[in-house]
This record gives sequence, C-alpha cells and structure tokens, in this order.
Amino acid sequence: MRALIFDGTLRLDRAALDPQPSGDQALLNIRRAGVCNTDLELIKGYMNFSGILGHEFVGEVVAGPDDWRGQRVVGEINVANGVCDLCQRGVPSQCRDRTTVGIDRHPGAFADQLALTTRNLHRVPDNVSDDQAVFVEPLAAALQTLEAVHIAPRDRVIVLGAGKLGMLVAQVLKLTGADLAVVVRREKQADLLKRWGIAAVARAELPNARAQIVVDCTGQAGGFADALDLVEPRGTIILKSTYEGLPQVNLTRVAVDEIRVVGSRCGPFAAALRLLSAGLVDVTSLVEARYSLEEAVQAFGHAAQQGVLKVLIEP
Amino acid sequence: MRALIFDGTLRLDRAALDPQPSGDQALLNIRRAGVCNTDLELIKGYMNFSGILGHEFVGEVVAGPDDWRGQRVVGEINVANGVCDLCQRGVPSQCRDRTTVGIDRHPGAFADQLALTTRNLHRVPDNVSDDQAVFVEPLAAALQTLEAVHIAPRDRVIVLGAGKLGMLVAQVLKLTGADLAVVVRREKQADLLKRWGIAAVARAELPNARAQIVVDCTGQAGGFADALDLVEPRGTIILKSTYEGLPQVNLTRVAVDEIRVVGSRCGPFAAALRLLSAGLVDVTSLVEARYSLEEAVQAFGHAAQQGVLKVLIEP
Repeated sequence: MRALIFDGTLRLDRAALDPQPSGDQALLNIRRAGVCNTDLELIKGYMNFSGILGHEFVGEVVAGPDDWRGQRVVGEINVANGVCDLCQRGVPSQCRDRTTVGIDRHPGAFADQLALTTRNLHRVPDNVSDDQAVFVEPLAAALQTLEAVHIAPRDRVIVLGAGKLGMLVAQVLKLTGADLAVVVRREKQADLLKRWGIAAVARAELPNARAQIVVDCTGQAGGFADALDLVEPRGTIILKSTYEGLPQVNLTRVAVDEIRVVGSRCGPFAAALRLLSAGLVDVTSLVEARYSLEEAVQAFGHAAQQGVLKVLIEP
Repeated sequence: MRALIFDGTLRLDRAALDPQPSGDQALLNIRRAGVCNTDLELIKGYMNFSGILGHEFVGEVVAGPDDWRGQRVVGEINVANGVCDLCQRGVPSQCRDRTTVGIDRHPGAFADQLALTTRNLHRVPDNVSDDQAVFVEPLAAALQTLEAVHIAPRDRVIVLGAGKLGMLVAQVLKLTGADLAVVVRREKQADLLKRWGIAAVARAELPNARAQIVVDCTGQAGGFADALDLVEPRGTIILKSTYEGLPQVNLTRVAVDEIRVVGSRCGPFAAALRLLSAGLVDVTSLVEARYSLEEAVQAFGHAAQQGVLKVLIEP
C-alpha cells in the first residue's frame, strides 16, 4: 500500500507493507485524515518518531471481527495494554505501556490502510460526515479541557492561540456559557470566531490577572508566561501545548498566587461524536485544503505555513 | 521600641518608632517569633522588602478593642482590604490590595510590639503553649496543601524537602492515612520522622512516576524537576517553594502526562490551632535554638545554616 513515512525524511512510500491485522484488530480503509500540529512537531524530531504518520482519521472497516465489518469508524490513538495500574484505574490513555497511533511505535493513518484494535474504535453516526468525523480526535482533545477542569458559567475564560486546536477548544468552551475570549492575531480566525459568536481579541486588550481560566493552545514555549500574566490568583491554566524545549517558568508566582496548572491531552471520543451529531460544533469551516495521499508531502508543506488551519489528506 | 530591621542590611534598631494602632487594630506585645525560610529569602532581596521582619509569632493584646485586650493571640499575615473581588469571594489571603506582615509593606513581629488589625487575630487555647503557638502560621501553610488538593487515604504521597516547612507538611499529611514518604538527606530529620512514624527515604530509593501526590517543599528551583520525575501520570504536584529565579520546566511533560500543578501559600489558622490543641502535631521538637531580640541578627545567622530547623526569637 501507499503510506506517508517519516524516517528522518518525509516521503511517500508506494510499496509499504500491507497491515496484517491480528485477532483483536480491524483493518480500515482510510477515508480521510487530518494534519495536526503534533505531526509537524514529529517531523522536527519530537518523540524521535519513525514510521507512518497520521492520527486524525475516519475509515471503513474492511476486515476483522464480524460486528465491525462495513462500519464507518474513528479510532482512539492510545493503544493500551489493559493490565497496568493506570488501565485498571480507568485511564487507558495514560497506559504505562501504550503505543500511540502515528506518534509512538504504532503505524499511522496517512496510508491506504491501518490495522487498529477494535477496543479503540467508535462508530460514526450517519449524520456525521467524513469531513466532520476526521475532527473527532482533536475535538475530543479540546473536550479534555472540560474533563480536567470544571469551567463554570460565571467564569472568565481566555483561550491563547487560535490555531487548529484553539479554534476547537474555543467552540467547546463557548458551550459552557462562560465569559469567553480568544486571543487572535489573524483576520481569518477572528472572522470565524465572530461568526460563531465568540469574542476575538488582541492580547493588548486583555487586563492582567483577571481570568479564572486560561487555556494555552499556542503550541509554543512562550504561551505559558502569557497565561500566567492573564490568570487571576487561585485561577487555572490548562496546558494543551506540546513542543520541544524547556521554557523558564515563574513557579514562585504559581505558588504565591496559588495558581493551578493542569496538563490535558487526549479526550472523550463519544462526547465529541455527540457534539458533532448534534451540530453544536462547526468543524468543516476549519478545512483549509485537501490533498490526495499522492500529494501528502505537499500537504505537510501547506499545513506548516503560519496561520493555516486544517489540511486533509484523502487516499 | 526595639525591632529587627532590614533595609539592605540586617540590624537591630533600638529606637524604632512605637506602633500607633488605628481603630481596627490591636497592639500586641510579642511573646515569641519564629524565623522562616521566607525571612532568609527576604534578606537576599526577595520582594524588595524593607522594614521590620517577622511573620510567625504569638503575642498578647495590650491595647485595642475591649474584647481582645489581655488575650493571647496569633495573627494571619495577609492584611486584606475586604472590598476587592477576591475578598468578596472569600479569598482575603489573595486580596488584590493586601499588605503582608513582615513580608510586604507591613511591619513584622521581630520587635517588642506589633499593631495588627483584629480581623487577623485568633485566640490561642490555654492548652497550646507559646512555643506551639508560634508554629501556627507555618502549620496553617502546611494545612493549605489539604485545602488545595484532596489527598485520599489510598494515595502514595511524597514530600520533597525535610526543612522547617516540609517537616510540618509531613505531619499534616500523615493524618490523611495516605502512604507517605519524605525525602531526607540529614540524620536529624530522619530520626524525627521515624519518631513520628513517617517513612524517611533517600531520593534514590524512590521509583519514578509512581506517586499520586508530590509536595515540593525544597524551597529551591531544582525541586520541581524532581517532583515531575516522581509524580505519576494524572498525578498532582503541590508547590510550596518560593524563591528568586526562574527554573526551566518541562511543561510538555506536564501536558502529556496530564499532571496537575497546584500552588499553595497561606492556610487556615483555626485548623492549625485545632490540631495543636488536640496534640496531633509535634512542633516543639522542631525548635533548634532560642535567641533574645537583642541577639536577633545572630539568630538569623544560625537559621541560615544548612539543615537548621526552627530558630525562635523572644523579646
């Protein structure tokens, strides 16, 4: 099959080995996959990744257990062993022995096919399109902010970073009824946010130390210092950014102002599918370009440009 | 009166102005005061402090409102304005306009007398001695770990830093029934912890990524990296350390492992008095030396030595 490989260089392999699904795995024909900032970090060396990239996808089961065959599905990316203490405590996404689709020792979805354990699959409702379904993984990650922290209707909330993930986080947080503002630098994002009824503001418009919750979706080391300036004493910073590098952090300020910093990663697929099925989140407006798998390397070039939102790849 | 002043140099002022209590203030004769690590940071330049040091104390009210006169009292250190949004929400310790006794624009307790608003005073029960009462402020700060985070009996908890504050945090956390270990480097601390039935361990004995809760009481920038190594995914780091400087922090690890980092500062005096009155915490074993106010500068020299626990100053 064809697959987008990174092994130090990014290239399309037209003769990649076909996946050989094991007993608990389904074989999926990939229908659509999305390029994520993590993909762009991986090809810069993050996680020392080598293999087939891609972890946002929707596919059709073409082989595997009977009850899955023919189903249109999305797949959680953490493949857990099911037996470690964190799995036993109901946190398989943090399994001590996990692999991660397209990120850590598991083949990804920028390919014709993918074999994945059926434990990770979720059926896609008929009223959720392929274009919508490909956003389930990042939308679930956006929803994880609400799993990690109680955001109340009275809260003042700021989202830092109006990129691919920030635009989903903003839409999810809007549903809480909280007083929400998103810091933007680009007109395209500002226009979309306004269309969704979400305040788009410049950083300079925001007073310091007044937000109960700040979500750092900047994907950059500098995001945290900005979040620390904006959050009020006893407030919460939710960290969604992952990147190479170790920023200098004012931890004394965290202690003195009694700030909470909450890391947040993968989220609930079922809830993301419910929101999409209910039409409560607009994801298709985030699609900026489509490429065939043949053009996958160009797709990455496009996705890496500043300010570009979602780039999709279709086999 | 006499007062220990820091104005770039640390010195005893034998002709300091007597406090002139205003309407809502009580005038206290200081009976005993304790030297804290924060005092040692202040004379290194932390907070740009200038004035009379000292924020751990017990005193007797000699002038002020009738119902307070003659009472033996301890005092909360944050003097709040009572009207800001944080005061209104019941968090006066984070008042946006606060001064802080002996730390920030409010005279401290290494003096013959101190004037302090009666709103900050707590009566000391008869069965709590002066030596015990002088620990109410740091014991309350230790209890703030439990205000900030729910520590459950099943949790594995590690305290990093067996200094003045760490030894109080350890005793408070022992009361939760959690599986507690304190990282120690000195025999004196190890012996005290063993006497209290608390496990004292070397850092090398502890496996990484296994503690649900790690409390950083090291008072040093390096403490956080150690805490991050010890805490398990989805675990919590409680920050008690304040110091000058900005450590490099692996925030990506915080996000990926979904760690919570919770800053914690001043705590509940009433609860600290209840624990002392009930005899549930041993503070007097932490007293390492006593100095008169005349010898206060020497007291600081002693307190600054590595591994020294509590040094008291008595007018």
